Amino acid sequence: MKIAVFGTGVVGRNIAQKLGSLGHNVIIGTRDVAKTMASTTGDAFGSPPFGEWHHQNETIQVGSFTQAAAFGELLFNCTLGMASLEVLRQAGSENLNGKILVDVANPLDFSQGMPPTLNPVNTDSLGESIQRAFPELKVVKALNTVNCFVMVNPSLVPGDHNVFICGNDQNAKETTVALIKSFGWKGENIIDIGDISNARGTEQLLPLWIRLFIKFQSPIFNFHISRAQ
Amino acid sequence: MKIAVFGTGVVGRNIAQKLGSLGHNVIIGTRDVAKTMASTTGDAFGSPPFGEWHHQNETIQVGSFTQAAAFGELLFNCTLGMASLEVLRQAGSENLNGKILVDVANPLDFSQGMPPTLNPVNTDSLGESIQRAFPELKVVKALNTVNCFVMVNPSLVPGDHNVFICGNDQNAKETTVALIKSFGWKGENIIDIGDISNARGTEQLLPLWIRLFIKFQSPIFNFHISRAQ
Repeated sequence: MKIAVFGTGVVGRNIAQKLGSLGHNVIIGTRDVAKTMASTTGDAFGSPPFGEWHHQNETIQVGSFTQAAAFGELLFNCTLGMASLEVLRQAGSENLNGKILVDVANPLDFSQGMPPTLNPVNTDSLGESIQRAFPELKVVKALNTVNCFVMVNPSLVPGDHNVFICGNDQNAKETTVALIKSFGWKGENIIDIGDISNARGTEQLLPLWIRLFIKFQSPIFNFHISRAQ
Repeated sequence: MKIAVFGTGVVGRNIAQKLGSLGHNVIIGTRDVAKTMASTTGDAFGSPPFGEWHHQNETIQVGSFTQAAAFGELLFNCTLGMASLEVLRQAGSENLNGKILVDVANPLDFSQGMPPTLNPVNTDSLGESIQRAFPELKVVKALNTVNCFVMVNPSLVPGDHNVFICGNDQNAKETTVALIKSFGWKGENIIDIGDISNARGTEQLLPLWIRLFIKFQSPIFNFHISRAQ
């Protein structure tokens, strides 16, 4: 499938690389291609500059947000949550309408210091905000409760553990579940919690996730729902 | 130990009953003792009227919030989260100061319909609000991420699964951990995530918990943190 990944950070890179390794035709979208390719700085987590990463992943195309959206039959939102709406506006609703957007982002707000808060939160969510702004886009919130290395390699975490999806379009959710399964997730560990308003539930898991990340000093963990069957 | 439980709902009853069965000297606090004892209505989950329940649990004393707070060496907040501050004001800071309050409540706000939202949330929490209002009280947020039947009987949920505690006073947390262990929780499944500000993390698990409760049509489940050791 032709898939566009918005965002050149560690999340976008991991998703793009995994999709490429599965045989998909992948483009990464960025604000300014020339600037992104020329960047010489990595990130705080030890990722290399984008150009260096891309040199080792040359089959992945790079384009503007608009070019990526126009190319992709399915879209992944891997941008910083606070920037996602602006990125999608740049991509252009004419390039989004009718397509599936898998939204793995969280609206983390670092403006009030660490740990980050959420914006929006409680009576709204990023997933819903995107769905409202682009009513013809099929938004599926998914994978946003795990670190990006776990997203594409669930076996990094031992045993069974869960991810959650929600969205308004049943077919879009089925397509997303199939993709997530191809990443290595067992079907029974993918929990559909309903329409996109339920993104409030999964996004609000982040405040606890972040505190556990700080405690464990590692992002390689996940939540498993234990219950009597 | 002499323990006061604020709240006569299903949470307070379960906690009081468990504490009584463990040999503690327990008082349940309520706004209006005569009215509570005379009530002829149960709750939406099938609990009997309080008087009927108390008839089967006569060793548990009943008193006003003030009487309960004065009696208890350790206190449990099992009131509705939106009412907790007012209850503690009624109990009187002179009866709270220097004591441990185990806060199992969540600030669920049903005023905007179902599922409930949280108030406060994100940049504040109920645990912090209580700590700010009563600086001499040792607030320990605990057990608020599981149903009250699971609180006092973790083996209802199969396998290992976790609860979280946080609070500013280390000795208060150690006393609380010992109590939680006496309820049947393994020490390694009780995760201390730091000071009381981290109640934002555990209270914000509720929006997902509620959605899973709706999906499973059962409150008997819990989260287990899976990670490589």
